[in-house]
Amino acid sequence: MEKYVYFFGNSKADGHGTMKDVLGGKGAGLAEMTNAGLPVPPGFTIATSACRAYFENDNRLPQAVTSQADEALERLEALLEQKLGDSQNPLLVSVRSGAKFSMPGMMDTILNLGMNDEVVEIFARKTGNPRFAYDSYRRFIQMFGNVVLDISKDQFEHILDRQKKKRRFTLDTQLSADDFKQVISGYKQVIRKVTGKDFPQDPRVQLQMAIEAVFRSWNNPRAITYRRMNKIPDDLGTAVNVQTMVFGNMGETSGTGVGFTRDPATGEKQFYGEFLMNAQGEDVVAGIRTPVPITELHEIMPEVYTQLREITSRLEHHYKDVQDFEFTIQEGKLYMLQTRTGKRTGKAAVKIAVDLVEEGIITAEEALMRVEPEQLNQLLHPILDESKPLKVIAKGLPASPGAAVGRVVFTAEDAVEKGKSDPVILVRAETVPDDIHGMEVAAGILTSRGGMTSHAAVVTRGMGKCCVAGCGSAEVDARRKVLRIGSIVIKEGDWLSLDGSTGRVILGKAETSLPDPGSGDFATFMKWADEVRQLGVRANADIPRDALVARRFGAEGIGLCRTEHMFFASDRLPHVQRMIMACKDTTDAKEAARYAKERRAALAKLLPMQRKDFYGLFKAMDGLSVTIRTLDPPLHEFLPKREELMVQIATLEAKGKKSPKLGQLKKMLAVVEGLHEFNPMLGLRGCRLGIMYPEITEMQARAIFEAAADCKKRGIEAKPEVMIPLVGEVKELALQKEIVDRVAQEVFKKKGVEVEYLVGTMIELPAAALSAEEIAQEAEFFSFGTNDLTQTTFGLSRDDCGKIINSYVKQKIWPADPFAVLDPKRVGRLVKLGTSEGRKSRANLKVGICGEHGGDPASIAVCAEAGLNYVSCSPYRVPIARLAAAQAALQRAKERSAEEAYTTA
Amino acid sequence: MEKYVYFFGNSKADGHGTMKDVLGGKGAGLAEMTNAGLPVPPGFTIATSACRAYFENDNRLPQAVTSQADEALERLEALLEQKLGDSQNPLLVSVRSGAKFSMPGMMDTILNLGMNDEVVEIFARKTGNPRFAYDSYRRFIQMFGNVVLDISKDQFEHILDRQKKKRRFTLDTQLSADDFKQVISGYKQVIRKVTGKDFPQDPRVQLQMAIEAVFRSWNNPRAITYRRMNKIPDDLGTAVNVQTMVFGNMGETSGTGVGFTRDPATGEKQFYGEFLMNAQGEDVVAGIRTPVPITELHEIMPEVYTQLREITSRLEHHYKDVQDFEFTIQEGKLYMLQTRTGKRTGKAAVKIAVDLVEEGIITAEEALMRVEPEQLNQLLHPILDESKPLKVIAKGLPASPGAAVGRVVFTAEDAVEKGKSDPVILVRAETVPDDIHGMEVAAGILTSRGGMTSHAAVVTRGMGKCCVAGCGSAEVDARRKVLRIGSIVIKEGDWLSLDGSTGRVILGKAETSLPDPGSGDFATFMKWADEVRQLGVRANADIPRDALVARRFGAEGIGLCRTEHMFFASDRLPHVQRMIMACKDTTDAKEAARYAKERRAALAKLLPMQRKDFYGLFKAMDGLSVTIRTLDPPLHEFLPKREELMVQIATLEAKGKKSPKLGQLKKMLAVVEGLHEFNPMLGLRGCRLGIMYPEITEMQARAIFEAAADCKKRGIEAKPEVMIPLVGEVKELALQKEIVDRVAQEVFKKKGVEVEYLVGTMIELPAAALSAEEIAQEAEFFSFGTNDLTQTTFGLSRDDCGKIINSYVKQKIWPADPFAVLDPKRVGRLVKLGTSEGRKSRANLKVGICGEHGGDPASIAVCAEAGLNYVSCSPYRVPIARLAAAQAALQRAKERSAEEAYTTA
Repeated sequence: MEKYVYFFGNSKADGHGTMKDVLGGKGAGLAEMTNAGLPVPPGFTIATSACRAYFENDNRLPQAVTSQADEALERLEALLEQKLGDSQNPLLVSVRSGAKFSMPGMMDTILNLGMNDEVVEIFARKTGNPRFAYDSYRRFIQMFGNVVLDISKDQFEHILDRQKKKRRFTLDTQLSADDFKQVISGYKQVIRKVTGKDFPQDPRVQLQMAIEAVFRSWNNPRAITYRRMNKIPDDLGTAVNVQTMVFGNMGETSGTGVGFTRDPATGEKQFYGEFLMNAQGEDVVAGIRTPVPITELHEIMPEVYTQLREITSRLEHHYKDVQDFEFTIQEGKLYMLQTRTGKRTGKAAVKIAVDLVEEGIITAEEALMRVEPEQLNQLLHPILDESKPLKVIAKGLPASPGAAVGRVVFTAEDAVEKGKSDPVILVRAETVPDDIHGMEVAAGILTSRGGMTSHAAVVTRGMGKCCVAGCGSAEVDARRKVLRIGSIVIKEGDWLSLDGSTGRVILGKAETSLPDPGSGDFATFMKWADEVRQLGVRANADIPRDALVARRFGAEGIGLCRTEHMFFASDRLPHVQRMIMACKDTTDAKEAARYAKERRAALAKLLPMQRKDFYGLFKAMDGLSVTIRTLDPPLHEFLPKREELMVQIATLEAKGKKSPKLGQLKKMLAVVEGLHEFNPMLGLRGCRLGIMYPEITEMQARAIFEAAADCKKRGIEAKPEVMIPLVGEVKELALQKEIVDRVAQEVFKKKGVEVEYLVGTMIELPAAALSAEEIAQEAEFFSFGTNDLTQTTFGLSRDDCGKIINSYVKQKIWPADPFAVLDPKRVGRLVKLGTSEGRKSRANLKVGICGEHGGDPASIAVCAEAGLNYVSCSPYRVPIARLAAAQAALQRAKERSAEEAYTTA
Repeated sequence: MEKYVYFFGNSKADGHGTMKDVLGGKGAGLAEMTNAGLPVPPGFTIATSACRAYFENDNRLPQAVTSQADEALERLEALLEQKLGDSQNPLLVSVRSGAKFSMPGMMDTILNLGMNDEVVEIFARKTGNPRFAYDSYRRFIQMFGNVVLDISKDQFEHILDRQKKKRRFTLDTQLSADDFKQVISGYKQVIRKVTGKDFPQDPRVQLQMAIEAVFRSWNNPRAITYRRMNKIPDDLGTAVNVQTMVFGNMGETSGTGVGFTRDPATGEKQFYGEFLMNAQGEDVVAGIRTPVPITELHEIMPEVYTQLREITSRLEHHYKDVQDFEFTIQEGKLYMLQTRTGKRTGKAAVKIAVDLVEEGIITAEEALMRVEPEQLNQLLHPILDESKPLKVIAKGLPASPGAAVGRVVFTAEDAVEKGKSDPVILVRAETVPDDIHGMEVAAGILTSRGGMTSHAAVVTRGMGKCCVAGCGSAEVDARRKVLRIGSIVIKEGDWLSLDGSTGRVILGKAETSLPDPGSGDFATFMKWADEVRQLGVRANADIPRDALVARRFGAEGIGLCRTEHMFFASDRLPHVQRMIMACKDTTDAKEAARYAKERRAALAKLLPMQRKDFYGLFKAMDGLSVTIRTLDPPLHEFLPKREELMVQIATLEAKGKKSPKLGQLKKMLAVVEGLHEFNPMLGLRGCRLGIMYPEITEMQARAIFEAAADCKKRGIEAKPEVMIPLVGEVKELALQKEIVDRVAQEVFKKKGVEVEYLVGTMIELPAAALSAEEIAQEAEFFSFGTNDLTQTTFGLSRDDCGKIINSYVKQKIWPADPFAVLDPKRVGRLVKLGTSEGRKSRANLKVGICGEHGGDPASIAVCAEAGLNYVSCSPYRVPIARLAAAQAALQRAKERSAEEAYTTA
């Protein structure tokens, strides 16, 4: 006969941990723990096959299932010397659903099944706590009524409320045992009224009805929709877990507690936890009674303590990791209710991983899989001293991690000025490229608008600087230099603290500390990661300071230097604007030549400044590659805003004043109008600029090669990689490359030295990925710009779509924000396609990624799978990327060996 | 020995027309014409293999080549009884390059080779025209000096200019034979000065040097770049064509002329052309002497005339098409200089194609390949009467074909008003959706800004209405109601005429005529097309009038009805705006419910109007499918413009006036700000609207199904296909489809009838094409929206990128505007991928295209190759699409049979 029911108890289970198909996730876990020798409350699992059989049998339990369940129940009763509904030793059980995949909409837990009018009294007597007994009974009736009999929760809540009102109570905790007796009577009436039948007093009937209810819940509409959306087959079915209830409040030989096998904050190897005697689990965490350190259990119940230490130590070895466990002692007998991998801080995670290797429990490779790359963040940024009280006054988005403390300023200029004496926090409604110089000197940034990929967020992450963005409750009045949060008014110069890791905004001057990333464990751990990973890790850095940070964090080069950031500095912007004023179209050849000459003149002023920028970068990265992207953003970003000009002009005109300023404004507006675009993201930018105005590329190439040549003369090894952005067609790249190569030869000839360099391209348009084979005929490297590639693939502007993304993630249309986590199905597919087709033309094509995704672990795994050579990310994310790259390599090795095993078999 | 030289002459050639690899394109053509029995001036072709041999032999002509060329020359001299450099009968030849692919940068033609100080005198005597002889000689020296000796043209032009100055002439034609003698002497000095050698007087030396120059030109930088850009292998080499010169000005038994085998304007079968005796080709076209109708040649030289008629008739049969030929009679002997397929009007093209079938010369399938689909345009739109004088005052882009005549108006309102009495031409800087009602009544549209895919262009093409767009020289002052073109001022009410097929703007009231598309030939021709084509042809139409036009032109359904156009009407816009005012976000559930209720209330007002719209469409298309797209554009398109509001507010504020209007404007601005997007193309639009605000989809679905049900009750067969736009992920479609299906069931239940319908999606994002397999699990049809797909694939906003596109096409970065011709490499690849992967999930998936490309012949060929079921285009392009679809089917059949032949062989 087919086996439908799997018993577990007394350190032995019929099933085991890998049988999720048969036992569901929860049932497999219970079997695993039991087999691991844990004293888990015994019980049995009714297999998913029984669910299928139930449906095939017209929604009735087949005889074979019922009889096997009865047998298992008898075995359970024998083991515990308790019986369902027994008047001496009544058995109480929980009933839970448990499918292969966890699924919303499935049946909730039913606790305390087996309670009835008789059992509740025995229970009251045994616990010496009638209130608890009657509360447990009424909870059981309510859960049973709602889940099994399909009566709405409201109807039960109504009765409870009525009782509280009658007694003028406001809290459930004020109700006595007698109150609950009245509530129970009310509940029973509801059930009779709605179902036409009495609440079943026979625990066997209760159990059968609960099992059937679990099976039925497989087909409730929410579960069906969820399966359809997530492609879970409809014919899997769910299992049912029936497990003995245990109670820690059955007198002074009972108790309950929680613990960790090691300290989850520091990672130190010491038994850690707390407990309460004669208490339930909720009492430990509720804070009414103060729990006792677990070491004291040694005094109270030495045998139980020894058993617990022995079990948890075994657990740590069995699961090869720190365990977070819950236990209950019922009348002197220890039960393990739960054990799971313990959550820990980043610092602890690294220490534990390294220690476990040293203890011989895991290998270095296993250790690498034990630390979430994101956790390393905590080891890289200053953190708030949480031991001191913090006055949190608002919460925004944790846009860029770390803590910052400083005096509030409201403009970039003030940041520069005031930042000379004290650290400053720059507070803006939102930041714009103009604010860069202020952001550079600020300790942290707070904005009231914008999301996780707003300008402030992206730039600060790049700088490794703390940022709290989109803090909706902050009203920023930059004109009056006042920040209002609720009734609190913060003026310029007031102290403010930010926690960019949680988004907290704290009034006053909090204390911070900087963890030491050079500590032994961290260094050991990162060395293992570097040995394992195959992906290179570079950093996105525009200035020498960032480049040096990146190098210290282990970056192996610069994957993206955005030259436009260099254009915004106040000594440069006038030249940039002069150049833009000459970016005019004309069909007249002479006029065109005049404009080009004017552009060249303006660019000539920028040349020495850019050369200096690049020299600094090459010097900082001596011996490592530096990828420099030619000018990318639309030109109007360097000019005043169109609508602001229009308003200024309208205001002056309405006032009827003639002023020379009006003429200037109108002239500027005419230029801005000429450059105005409805969709600048899809407009005149990237290599299109260099193709329309080749002088720009020429000047930048000249600055790069002159700087590189100067380096070489001074013994610095510059390795420039010139990157052309927004290419969609090989001919675009060919034309730009021609300029770069020509300028390089001119410079080398003039300077009398040659420098090795590469010319490559961003792949950031679907068009580029789709014609990668052609493009690689010209490109010596590819760098996937996955920010723009995501924007164009999805037709989704990241500046505009915050609301849409939030809504889509909430509605589960997308698993995550595609700008935070690389979409593997579409964008990732283009990355793979572009890489493999590019290498058809050029087998040794170097391929990297330089979007924000380059620092995201899940995205790094996609990059590894696509066979990329490197990822490039913010300097402060370099260690995270190194670890993620190592994990991706390990994961892939595992998959490959699984495939090989499959092929061999 | 390898054959390097191929002779042609006397009706027989060594080579033939298919030997382009060996003889180059030009050489193969000469061989073909000679073999066809044409009296072409004889000569020989030096094969491409000789070019390769030349390079292998260190840039020297191998002995074998020289000796074979000498032999051919002797054969030529014998045939003509002329000799190079002969003092009685000197032979003159032309030397031309001729590679397999024509290539810019290759050597230009050298004419009159064989001239020297002696020959020129003989020539002067023989022609009786010393001026002509010396002019010919100086031209030869100049060409030889420039092309063979690499001396810049300037140096020769300088001498010619000097001579003119000396004689105070302004024109070359004023120079006499003696003047040319002085020029020749100057030319020779230049050659001596630059090369250190005299101009070679020996014609054999001239010839050898010219041949080597042709070979050298294969490797000039421009040719190399061109080959690299166009992937032409570098090792093909070029051929050299050496051909006898003939002259029609050798006295009264010489002459020259041009002609057509049939009338190229009407297609009538009548010999057509003109000639001049004792003249050169340029004289016929220069207009100094008036050419004589070709029939008169019969009087003058009856034998030559008969020979010409016989030859051209044979040519028409040989090439199976109307020929456009050039001939020269040299001393009584007829030479054919050129014959090629004759260009013709659309009307002629159809008539000729049908006639040739009836004459048994070609098959119907061949006939279908003989008409450029675009030519049908001329048969579908009114055309200007060109026989009357036209005062062309400006030229813009030929945005939408046809002619229009009307009185000028400057606003949509005026168009509606004034259009009641007279036809009107609507003149705008650029049109916006608000102008639709004016555009509908106008006879034609003129804009000063915007390109071929601007709003005006797209909308008018949809309406089949004449439009001249982007007329840069037109200054539109809408406020003063004045149009200025140069010094011409046109006021409201003045008459203006437009030619949308050429972009001409004509002052005054021109006359037009409407060709009859129902004529016998046209109908016959289109019937053949329909029999052959496999692609269905639908039309994009939003209103019944357009739908009826489309149906008359042969549309088999509506492939795209844009419902948003229905939202702009003045009786609807207030409800639309009210709905938008309630599109607010809130986390408060009660508030959210209130907003949703408000939206529903506004949508309820729109429901009966939309229902009426759809009823009209279903009725017009009775029995045919009607694809209706749910609301697509960003909501702010229905509101006033942000910057205009800002300016109005600033103006009112600056004036210090308190007015209730200010408050209203501010309230509106707040709403507009809330909806403001940096890149609306990538923002909250398409199905994202329906997902954020499901009420919109619900209302539209209800209008569709209520209209369809009402149709059914009245015996009209409605076949709705509901199309969800901008889907990138199957779950988006699933959520919207759920709404559509639910509403359909509700309506059918209420109305008591059921209507068959489909729910499908636009594929207009790379993300959609890349997850087509998943999307097809929900979608019952796909329609590729290639406008947006091109925008996102290329990252190119079609509203902004006119300049970039023009520049790219001019620089040959792109072969064509990707919004006009579907890019096959990238966008086309996504179309193919999406189609094939979609059909993996749903084998019978119906797939169409509804972008502007649906009416473009080259794009239709890509659609046919991708296996689409139908294309959808503007009503007026339906016949064009039908023909293009037929041609694509024939082309594919041909390719397939070629493949089969290859496989069999």
